[in-house]
Amino acid sequence: MNSSTTDTYCSSSALPSANNVLYAQAGGVSAVINASAAAVIEKVQKHPDQFGKIYTALNGIKGVLEEALIDVSNMSSETLERLKHQPGAAFKACRFDLDPLEHNTAQYERVLEVFKTYEIGYFFYNGGNGSMVTAQKVADYCGEHGHPVICVGVAKTIDNDLDLSHCSPGFGSAAKYIATSFLEASLDIISMHETSSKFFVMECMGRNTGWLTLAAGLAKEVIPDLPLILLPAERAFNKTLFIQKVEQLISEKGYCVCAVSEGLQDEQGEYLAIAGIEHTLERDYTQLGGVGSYLSHMVSQHIQSKTHCAVPDYLQRSASHIVSQTDWQMAYDAGKASVEAALRGAHGVLPIIEVTGENPLTWCFKTVELEAVANLEKTVPDNFLTEDGMDITPAALDYLRPLIQGERPVHFKNGLPDIAIMSFVQVQKKLTPFRAVK
Amino acid sequence: MNSSTTDTYCSSSALPSANNVLYAQAGGVSAVINASAAAVIEKVQKHPDQFGKIYTALNGIKGVLEEALIDVSNMSSETLERLKHQPGAAFKACRFDLDPLEHNTAQYERVLEVFKTYEIGYFFYNGGNGSMVTAQKVADYCGEHGHPVICVGVAKTIDNDLDLSHCSPGFGSAAKYIATSFLEASLDIISMHETSSKFFVMECMGRNTGWLTLAAGLAKEVIPDLPLILLPAERAFNKTLFIQKVEQLISEKGYCVCAVSEGLQDEQGEYLAIAGIEHTLERDYTQLGGVGSYLSHMVSQHIQSKTHCAVPDYLQRSASHIVSQTDWQMAYDAGKASVEAALRGAHGVLPIIEVTGENPLTWCFKTVELEAVANLEKTVPDNFLTEDGMDITPAALDYLRPLIQGERPVHFKNGLPDIAIMSFVQVQKKLTPFRAVK
Repeated sequence: MNSSTTDTYCSSSALPSANNVLYAQAGGVSAVINASAAAVIEKVQKHPDQFGKIYTALNGIKGVLEEALIDVSNMSSETLERLKHQPGAAFKACRFDLDPLEHNTAQYERVLEVFKTYEIGYFFYNGGNGSMVTAQKVADYCGEHGHPVICVGVAKTIDNDLDLSHCSPGFGSAAKYIATSFLEASLDIISMHETSSKFFVMECMGRNTGWLTLAAGLAKEVIPDLPLILLPAERAFNKTLFIQKVEQLISEKGYCVCAVSEGLQDEQGEYLAIAGIEHTLERDYTQLGGVGSYLSHMVSQHIQSKTHCAVPDYLQRSASHIVSQTDWQMAYDAGKASVEAALRGAHGVLPIIEVTGENPLTWCFKTVELEAVANLEKTVPDNFLTEDGMDITPAALDYLRPLIQGERPVHFKNGLPDIAIMSFVQVQKKLTPFRAVK
Repeated sequence: MNSSTTDTYCSSSALPSANNVLYAQAGGVSAVINASAAAVIEKVQKHPDQFGKIYTALNGIKGVLEEALIDVSNMSSETLERLKHQPGAAFKACRFDLDPLEHNTAQYERVLEVFKTYEIGYFFYNGGNGSMVTAQKVADYCGEHGHPVICVGVAKTIDNDLDLSHCSPGFGSAAKYIATSFLEASLDIISMHETSSKFFVMECMGRNTGWLTLAAGLAKEVIPDLPLILLPAERAFNKTLFIQKVEQLISEKGYCVCAVSEGLQDEQGEYLAIAGIEHTLERDYTQLGGVGSYLSHMVSQHIQSKTHCAVPDYLQRSASHIVSQTDWQMAYDAGKASVEAALRGAHGVLPIIEVTGENPLTWCFKTVELEAVANLEKTVPDNFLTEDGMDITPAALDYLRPLIQGERPVHFKNGLPDIAIMSFVQVQKKLTPFRAVK
């Protein structure tokens, strides 16, 4: 075990200064993020010796600043069961990080004030890499100011770009959704291509990595000779080779299906399609989107035939009606492992997945330092793509297959999934108001 | 019962000239079209006294011309069960109609030749209105040339634009898919709108009618106060009123969700977004697409915030993993009713759905003349939309709710729906080749 996989103990004190717990969610949601939330709450509830109350913040760290807290100490098992299959982020997830300490000390002071007031000694942050490191920094700040707090990350991302971990909780369900949808759409075009569309493209999420695009390749598990083109974000787009392959596959099979990452770039490193630029206080954010439609038009012009394009967008990260049981279990286990790490006194760590067995897949969690993993990005390796970079290999199928195994029962009510908004009563505020966003 | 709802008996003869059966599929697929196919085959198999062999044509009427036929007389119950949950069109569906008789007699002569060779006396065509009328015309031609054929339509369209019928088989499942996906995506934006996207739009199929767009409104069954905008194809788009409503809903609720028909037109009758123009031998076909993205950009510019757009495209008509049991039953019953109509000697008719009871919904099939229904189009009525034309009414929910009730068991294999391509052996050709498309 190298240093990045060893628990790091609380830098300020062997024990936190208080025993209440705070859990919050940040970044893009997944279909199973609330399974992690339920696991944290259940595990904390089971350790009244170690933990006091457990609060959740609304809208992640923004809710901490704004003292928008919910006391879930006595959340019933019925509500917890409901939480386990609820899509979205039940406690709301923010795309908002604290400023660097030197630019905005007031934010850090405010978190310290809130943590002291609510006697928070444990902080579980369920978000992207960057957010979790910010959470750790604010906990460090608390420790340096006489209020030690143990901060542990809870892994989550549909993008599967979390490095060191075998995979990311959230990815398996999005992969199952993408593969199922792509397979169904392929059967549609197989039915109709002789007199209608000969090319279908699905645009998948993935800014820098093509894991979800790769997941569309799972359709080959059902249709081994599917005429498929994958365009993952990591591989520069070459129009000539792409069009050649489209034409070749259509001439061989009569049609061609394609999955593309929203973040596809050309050989000059320019995005093929940008939906817009969002200007936030923190940065300019290039919103991607449109590459599927762009390719669809390009192919239509070349082959002089109808083409079609699907963009599942939010659907791929919200589809609680087609969750992978394996992924759900990983998300649940991630929450549990985070609490276990905190029980061992680990601070500034993230439990990640290590595979312990295959057929069926078994795994355990080990912890790595949040800072060690924060700047890494797991990309699709070369041996997961064929030599031309546009098709899936058996090695990739072997990796992906276990992650989509199993289904969760879906509760329907009146024909629709029973996923009414869960609403919670906030605790009465005790502090002076603080505006997180000015 | 008015004249259009009375069976019309075979104009050429009380009995057809032969007793073999042909079934074929045409037009855009639905998630349940193969349930109709299975019903026709099962019902025919149960009447060996009346019917001889049953064939299916590959690619609809194109396959008839090309003598691409499959003998399904002995299709096993196991294969039929599989067929009942297979998405796409198992026998391939064509977007191809015969030319008018006066322009291309050769096509009609060829069908007659095929029908005579295979002793076809019954022709079941599972397609759009136009295709079914063409099927009738070709059967009429056969009758006029000494080979009477009974032709019966099998209703099918996800668009729900089939008039006289309570609804169309195929619509309920697409509506359930749209409503579920829209609901899940709404929970996503509810989770994140405070620091991310405040507007989400889903582009739904629907060239002239907004039934699938309306179906997104079913999300209000779960979230009654959902800040919703519906833009069905039948209502001209007014940018000023739309932007006003977006801004009002975002100011009230913090976010807004919208569903729009691909065929939305402005007040001058121009499509808001065209993906391309397809030139076929028969006509120029305006391919719609892009209106969701267009609105998403428009709103983004107005509210100066991130917006998102999903385009399910083929997914909404192929999603066999989330089929409405009610719709599935209707599709099955439509196939059965068509054979029953043929058994009664009805020709040139289409069995359509008449509701016989509510809570739970019960229905029967009655037949109307194909020609009577072919030029009609059922549009979303005024009382299904609020006064501003942009939201759903309780009357619409009452209409839609029963159509999405019930779920079908989904068979998974290795994490994916068990929907491998069904392949069939074509009968040995007996005739000289005929090129359907030159």
